[in-house]
Amino acid sequence: MNAPLKTTAEAATDFVRRHIGPSPRDISAMLETVGAKSLNELMSQTLPASIRQKAPLDLGPAFSETEVLSHMRELAAQNQVFTSLIGQGYSGTILPAVIQRNILENPAWYTAYTPYQPEISQGRLEALFNFQTMICDLTGLDVANASLLDEATAAAEAMALAERAAQAKAKSFFVDAEVHPQTLAVLRTRAEPLGWNLIVGDPLTDLDKAEVFGGLLQYPGTSGAVRDLRPAINTLRVKGALAVVAADLLALTLIASPGELGADIAIGSAQRFGVPMGYGGPHAAYMSVRDALKRSLPGRIVGLSVDSRGLPAYRLALQTREQHIRREKATSNICTAQVLLAVIASMYAVYHGPEGLTHIARNVHRRAAVLAAGLRKLGFALKSEAFFDTVTVDVGSRQGEIVVRAHTEAINLRIGEGRLGIALDETTTQATVEAVWRAFGGKLSYADIEVGARETLPAGLKRDSAFLVHPVFHAHRSETELLRYMRKLSDRDLALDRAMIPLGSCTMKLNATTEMIPLTWPEFGSLHPFAPSEQAKGYHVLFRRLEKALCDITGYDAVSLQPNSGAQGEYAGLLAIRAYHVARGEPHRKVCLIPSSAHGTNPASAHMVGMEVVVTACDARGDVDVDDLRAKAEKHSKNLAAVMITYPSTHGVFEEHIRDICEIVHGHGGQVYLDGANMNAQVGLSRPGDYGADVSHLNLHKTFCIPHGGGGPGMGPIGVKAHLAPYLPGHPATDGAVAASVGPVSAAPAGSASILTISYIYILLMGGEGLTRATEIAILNANYIASRLDPHFPVLYKNAKGRVAHECIVDPRPLKTTSGVTVDDIAKRLIDYGFHAPTMSFPVPGTLMIEPTESESKAELDRFCDAMIAIRSEITEIEAGRWKVEASPLRHAPHTVHDIADDAWSRAYSRAKGCFPDGVSRTDKYWSPVGRVDNVYGDRNLVCSCPPVADYAQAAE
Amino acid sequence: MNAPLKTTAEAATDFVRRHIGPSPRDISAMLETVGAKSLNELMSQTLPASIRQKAPLDLGPAFSETEVLSHMRELAAQNQVFTSLIGQGYSGTILPAVIQRNILENPAWYTAYTPYQPEISQGRLEALFNFQTMICDLTGLDVANASLLDEATAAAEAMALAERAAQAKAKSFFVDAEVHPQTLAVLRTRAEPLGWNLIVGDPLTDLDKAEVFGGLLQYPGTSGAVRDLRPAINTLRVKGALAVVAADLLALTLIASPGELGADIAIGSAQRFGVPMGYGGPHAAYMSVRDALKRSLPGRIVGLSVDSRGLPAYRLALQTREQHIRREKATSNICTAQVLLAVIASMYAVYHGPEGLTHIARNVHRRAAVLAAGLRKLGFALKSEAFFDTVTVDVGSRQGEIVVRAHTEAINLRIGEGRLGIALDETTTQATVEAVWRAFGGKLSYADIEVGARETLPAGLKRDSAFLVHPVFHAHRSETELLRYMRKLSDRDLALDRAMIPLGSCTMKLNATTEMIPLTWPEFGSLHPFAPSEQAKGYHVLFRRLEKALCDITGYDAVSLQPNSGAQGEYAGLLAIRAYHVARGEPHRKVCLIPSSAHGTNPASAHMVGMEVVVTACDARGDVDVDDLRAKAEKHSKNLAAVMITYPSTHGVFEEHIRDICEIVHGHGGQVYLDGANMNAQVGLSRPGDYGADVSHLNLHKTFCIPHGGGGPGMGPIGVKAHLAPYLPGHPATDGAVAASVGPVSAAPAGSASILTISYIYILLMGGEGLTRATEIAILNANYIASRLDPHFPVLYKNAKGRVAHECIVDPRPLKTTSGVTVDDIAKRLIDYGFHAPTMSFPVPGTLMIEPTESESKAELDRFCDAMIAIRSEITEIEAGRWKVEASPLRHAPHTVHDIADDAWSRAYSRAKGCFPDGVSRTDKYWSPVGRVDNVYGDRNLVCSCPPVADYAQAAE
Repeated sequence: MNAPLKTTAEAATDFVRRHIGPSPRDISAMLETVGAKSLNELMSQTLPASIRQKAPLDLGPAFSETEVLSHMRELAAQNQVFTSLIGQGYSGTILPAVIQRNILENPAWYTAYTPYQPEISQGRLEALFNFQTMICDLTGLDVANASLLDEATAAAEAMALAERAAQAKAKSFFVDAEVHPQTLAVLRTRAEPLGWNLIVGDPLTDLDKAEVFGGLLQYPGTSGAVRDLRPAINTLRVKGALAVVAADLLALTLIASPGELGADIAIGSAQRFGVPMGYGGPHAAYMSVRDALKRSLPGRIVGLSVDSRGLPAYRLALQTREQHIRREKATSNICTAQVLLAVIASMYAVYHGPEGLTHIARNVHRRAAVLAAGLRKLGFALKSEAFFDTVTVDVGSRQGEIVVRAHTEAINLRIGEGRLGIALDETTTQATVEAVWRAFGGKLSYADIEVGARETLPAGLKRDSAFLVHPVFHAHRSETELLRYMRKLSDRDLALDRAMIPLGSCTMKLNATTEMIPLTWPEFGSLHPFAPSEQAKGYHVLFRRLEKALCDITGYDAVSLQPNSGAQGEYAGLLAIRAYHVARGEPHRKVCLIPSSAHGTNPASAHMVGMEVVVTACDARGDVDVDDLRAKAEKHSKNLAAVMITYPSTHGVFEEHIRDICEIVHGHGGQVYLDGANMNAQVGLSRPGDYGADVSHLNLHKTFCIPHGGGGPGMGPIGVKAHLAPYLPGHPATDGAVAASVGPVSAAPAGSASILTISYIYILLMGGEGLTRATEIAILNANYIASRLDPHFPVLYKNAKGRVAHECIVDPRPLKTTSGVTVDDIAKRLIDYGFHAPTMSFPVPGTLMIEPTESESKAELDRFCDAMIAIRSEITEIEAGRWKVEASPLRHAPHTVHDIADDAWSRAYSRAKGCFPDGVSRTDKYWSPVGRVDNVYGDRNLVCSCPPVADYAQAAE
Repeated sequence: MNAPLKTTAEAATDFVRRHIGPSPRDISAMLETVGAKSLNELMSQTLPASIRQKAPLDLGPAFSETEVLSHMRELAAQNQVFTSLIGQGYSGTILPAVIQRNILENPAWYTAYTPYQPEISQGRLEALFNFQTMICDLTGLDVANASLLDEATAAAEAMALAERAAQAKAKSFFVDAEVHPQTLAVLRTRAEPLGWNLIVGDPLTDLDKAEVFGGLLQYPGTSGAVRDLRPAINTLRVKGALAVVAADLLALTLIASPGELGADIAIGSAQRFGVPMGYGGPHAAYMSVRDALKRSLPGRIVGLSVDSRGLPAYRLALQTREQHIRREKATSNICTAQVLLAVIASMYAVYHGPEGLTHIARNVHRRAAVLAAGLRKLGFALKSEAFFDTVTVDVGSRQGEIVVRAHTEAINLRIGEGRLGIALDETTTQATVEAVWRAFGGKLSYADIEVGARETLPAGLKRDSAFLVHPVFHAHRSETELLRYMRKLSDRDLALDRAMIPLGSCTMKLNATTEMIPLTWPEFGSLHPFAPSEQAKGYHVLFRRLEKALCDITGYDAVSLQPNSGAQGEYAGLLAIRAYHVARGEPHRKVCLIPSSAHGTNPASAHMVGMEVVVTACDARGDVDVDDLRAKAEKHSKNLAAVMITYPSTHGVFEEHIRDICEIVHGHGGQVYLDGANMNAQVGLSRPGDYGADVSHLNLHKTFCIPHGGGGPGMGPIGVKAHLAPYLPGHPATDGAVAASVGPVSAAPAGSASILTISYIYILLMGGEGLTRATEIAILNANYIASRLDPHFPVLYKNAKGRVAHECIVDPRPLKTTSGVTVDDIAKRLIDYGFHAPTMSFPVPGTLMIEPTESESKAELDRFCDAMIAIRSEITEIEAGRWKVEASPLRHAPHTVHDIADDAWSRAYSRAKGCFPDGVSRTDKYWSPVGRVDNVYGDRNLVCSCPPVADYAQAAE
């Protein structure tokens, strides 16, 4: 990495020591426990010699925390915060400070994991439930998810949903010419490999003659026009095609909802509900559907169910859709959501309530109307007279001078052919409107023009249905009340700020505070993704340096920062492979080999690029069965496109034969996609680009410290060898005169740019030596856990030398036979001990996969191992017949205050045994807010948004 | 207020609505409950017509949150952050980001109150216990407090302690010429009214002949010199005088502690342990003493005791010292501490541990040694060759040019007569050292000079005793561990982010996030208090505007922002009155009338300025007995100095006769000190300066939104009428050629400057109308509570129209007769209901004083009233004989998880009744971490610091 020059020759402070959990003394003790003389010896026993990196990772000297923040200030100063009136799906917005500090900057929220363990996730599940309620209410549809990556990918998902669900069996999809250009580009990327044709046109004139399975309409349109879409939607219905409406949430407070217009699906962005633009992201996109489509809805849905006492409890609903069971047939690879941003958007709505949102919308609309009146007065013609917040103006040859004048006012306009777009938002002041007029050559007074301005929303589209009627949107209007609500929710959840989260494959490491600081600075947070790049010089310096560092770390030659999640990275990587084969005249290469141990997203991503998945076997050790792979590669030699392999494997082992596998696939003309989910076991020790991989994604939210945010945001950049570099995703906003070979996979050119600061800072703070050390300790921690637990819960897979990589699978399946205790029982019992469970039943059903990361101290590892061993003793009691499994504390776990308060307690064990098992502090006990959640009940009785409450008016003001 | 011009004519957003709890609808309902037709009518019934403010409060238009942050950015830009090597008790320091975000910026910490209710304060009590342990260990003394306002006032307190405790009965106090100038100035202010003489000199030569009750020595000295103080301390001991050492905590990691040198008392600042300089504060000062002096130690001391189950529990120890019982004899008015800053300093030590602190100290010292070597090489002579981090250089006539060159390097040096001081700290880089050399005219390379540099600490003073041996200083070296420790402690406490804190007289209102943001910006946080004022233009603009606003609000003519607490404000105000009388040739006016209902600090402050306290009676209604006051004013007419009166009274009532009282006192030549503690009932409605008061302090941490921080920081500016303006406190750093009439009362000219941003922002956000509205709602909320509770717990004092002011006293004393239930029982039972108790037994023993503030919503007021009423029902059950009081849930309160987990539960009520009384959520229950704390046990068995742990080495690395 071309490290920025440090201003002094100071030694770095001890950040590496702060990031890594075990002390030097602990490390010695742990090496003794695992039976290795040194870290180096342990590494030799863990990684195949054939892949060990020769030269130490050199990224320049590590920075201290003070130095890195000073460096970031310098980068920030190279970005310029203009007032961006570009619109196109991104708006200025005001994130209430109380939400910023207490959610976005609060580790209780940002370090949480995806709520797969619902009992310890009730807080964020409620916030997401509020989000879904808000989306359903505003869009007028029945079921919403929470959430999707961005509006453009949401559109692509909607297209895919329409293709699956529509009666019409056509292979074309209609796209409104008023759709945002980046959405159209992402749709093109998605449609092409699947053989779907896109028909772009005016829905009011061009739809009749088209044979389509669905159509996407933008509402208001990208130019700002508010059109009555009912005729177009009706046309689609008549064709048996599905109508998708991309709608602006703020506008929907004033105009009729997509549901009321007859749409089947609504999608869009919740960015303008308080989420900074961040030069592209992260933000939460939404999708809502008619009830009939709910089981086809991609992404995560929060539903209300009941717990073991029949009390209400939230959890992820309909988890059995999509890649989880459909695996080889999946057509959506959606996994990571944008939870943290959805939570923020929901709190924005909770804080403002329906009246507040409507008030904001009216203000924005009024300003836009005044703006338009002024422009008319200055002699300009508007493209549409019906608009909400955006006007498009015909400017002809005057475009250049206007844009220049706008820049002198520090204003960005949207530049089109002979046109300029001006999009207002809640941050727009009267002064800004006057400045725009000056840019258009006139000196007008806002007050003067306001007198004659009138609202321009078509009367027939005026919204008259209620929304956000639930009391939660009415009870928290004071900052005090909102603060307490957010605190209450966060207290229900267990995140990294309270305990280790030993989730295998998820790399729940420290998200250091210093890494989290710059992203909320205005110079990073307030940039529009399509602002002129000269206003984002600091960002671009950061991108280039981060790409270079990731290349150094992986051995690849080029990196794209665009994919917004690991799964999007897989998709982008496979698109590159596909384009490579096509460019070489081998478009028939479509077979993708995937070992049976792969992540569920792998086959889904392969399907999305039109590949055919061939599953290869694993051997008894859990390794890829090289013979089977060889046989299948030979069988499909002519058509072999790629192998997708995770390394170290999802079984937590560095397989010996990775080089052989790469060579086999290359020998048959295929490409190697190496899933980088487990990169935390490799940084500084081995480089995929060196031992045969052609492309990988890197989960920055795992290895590179972007916090999981309760289930997003994530970032999944891909690295490629030079021959694939021409096929990295392009983007209409950054492509030159000629479009890139492969279109964009995300709405914004650099994906969720603002959170790239986190990974960049992490790398600077650690340096090459620190990163390598982190990897070594991650592996030591995993082997320590394996050593301690193996006598109690056998470790399922190890390499020939008895070592695991950075995680290990322990196998309680035999105990089910001897005691009836399930892996669920163990997971829920761990909650009583104050822990989030390890990954359950992935990749091997019935087992637990444990990944400690380098950030957990020996004390915390011991606390966890002690809990596991104590649980094993409890199982022994069942085996010995002391308790029946149904009556054991394992089956009753997690225990709640409802349990302990029960005067009629008549269990086979004491309250204390149930609630405060060995080693659990009474004083500082984490109480699960609900008992074990009943998933089946919830899916049978699906409730995914707050029910309308008759007496809501009481809570309203 | 000369409001800064807003850039646009935008309407303010709804901050006033966000600050105020009740919605407009709630307000109507509440007016109905209290039986008032309108807010205006309620105000007329509450305040005497004679004092109602005529013109509405006009402070210019209110700002929106966005606007105010933008305005603060502009002010910030007017401050310049130089590298200040001024020293003099203030050092650059690195606040670890994880501590900044999770303590300083975390409402769970900053909105907590002083831990008078120990059960719900165990988290911050533990942090303060760590602070005391750190101070005891580093200073080598037995008992430390937590904490004092600043080093200078700590020195004054130590002087007063020495005067009380020394065997020597002299009236002189020796002050080392090496004491910081601002400390000397504050000592002079304090000594003069008490008739104590200060002898300033070299302790090694001038002490022998002095007759003193004590002496203050600085270690290292203000010039940086490290001297062996043992001979001087010995001389003091021989005289029967007490030896006070002002010591630098970081230096103490390397040099022998004051205790080891034989000192009786150590004082100093903990600022450089992670607390930003903030242009003067806030920071925590410390004081530690030999065991024999512990009962004379001023300020708050945390001690370990036991709870109702005999389990360890922290609480404030020795609460019966000082003004609490000694009242009329008190000689210290210390009340507010600097809890939040003490917590930060303690966490800094927890994070670094002894090795880390020593490492930092060694680095600083090494740089200083290299700096000195370079200066010698450049031909400069040092004042002392033995130093820790500060060198003083004789520069003669070259001073001017050196200072100018240093400024071009953005470096501030300390300017003395013919000398320059250079103080290094943990932020000093090698580049800074080289820049200093350049300022001194030489171009040297750090690396070159380092080779020949040697450490300069005297061998005989090398520290060899251990410190911070307790495991808490060894177990949290990773950021993850520290984060979890801080979270765990905060979870034990109940602060405003979870529930209303209805403490009468404390005004626990919203501390809005936006108000808290700028203070941690470097432009406000990183300024040295003695930096040239041209580098602090933004601060000075803010000071002037804030002073103007406070004048507008109070009707005074001038304001001093210097006092760091309400009590310091009282002291400063009385100093002004005293100086005024002296200036008029009436130095004999020393009688200060104080009603019996006064705050305990009032008489203490009066004693501190040498006044004689005469207590006046209250009538049956709780009002000042005007006849008694008149009689006593007449009796003392010739010698009458002042009356100190709280308004509205501490009884929570606007007394009708306030104007009369002022006139009576003025008629006898006295001045009126109006205690501004209850200003939250007056802002916008009445102005003390209009109805007869001459001087008041304003608790910015009550009325003006500085958060209480768990017991500090506070700010107590005083406002005065024009005739007292010449007697506001001066300061050597800001006085012109002639010293001010009255010396400084704080170490820094503008007290705790950085937190003035909070009050300034609050005023801008509210505007005059919003502030007035807030006062009205504060009064409405109090009257609403009074109305709801009166039938259950009689409201003790109301005005003639049946109204209370912004708080009310309810009287459970009769219930003690009928049921045996004490006010303590009620307070502790409220914890089970999830509330912090109201103020207990002040001002009327056995009663509860309730102040809701304007920020609590009707829902929260109702939840509180419902809890009180439910408690009243529980008392009814005791009255009815269903429970004995000893066996009731009231006496057993608060209930803990230890209680509920007890399988042997055999109480007269159910677990659920005990732990989840009516209306308490089980899911979101706040659990008191300990049962009722035994105060007597703790005071009998005083433990105020962590015991040495034999096996600490195990935890150490």
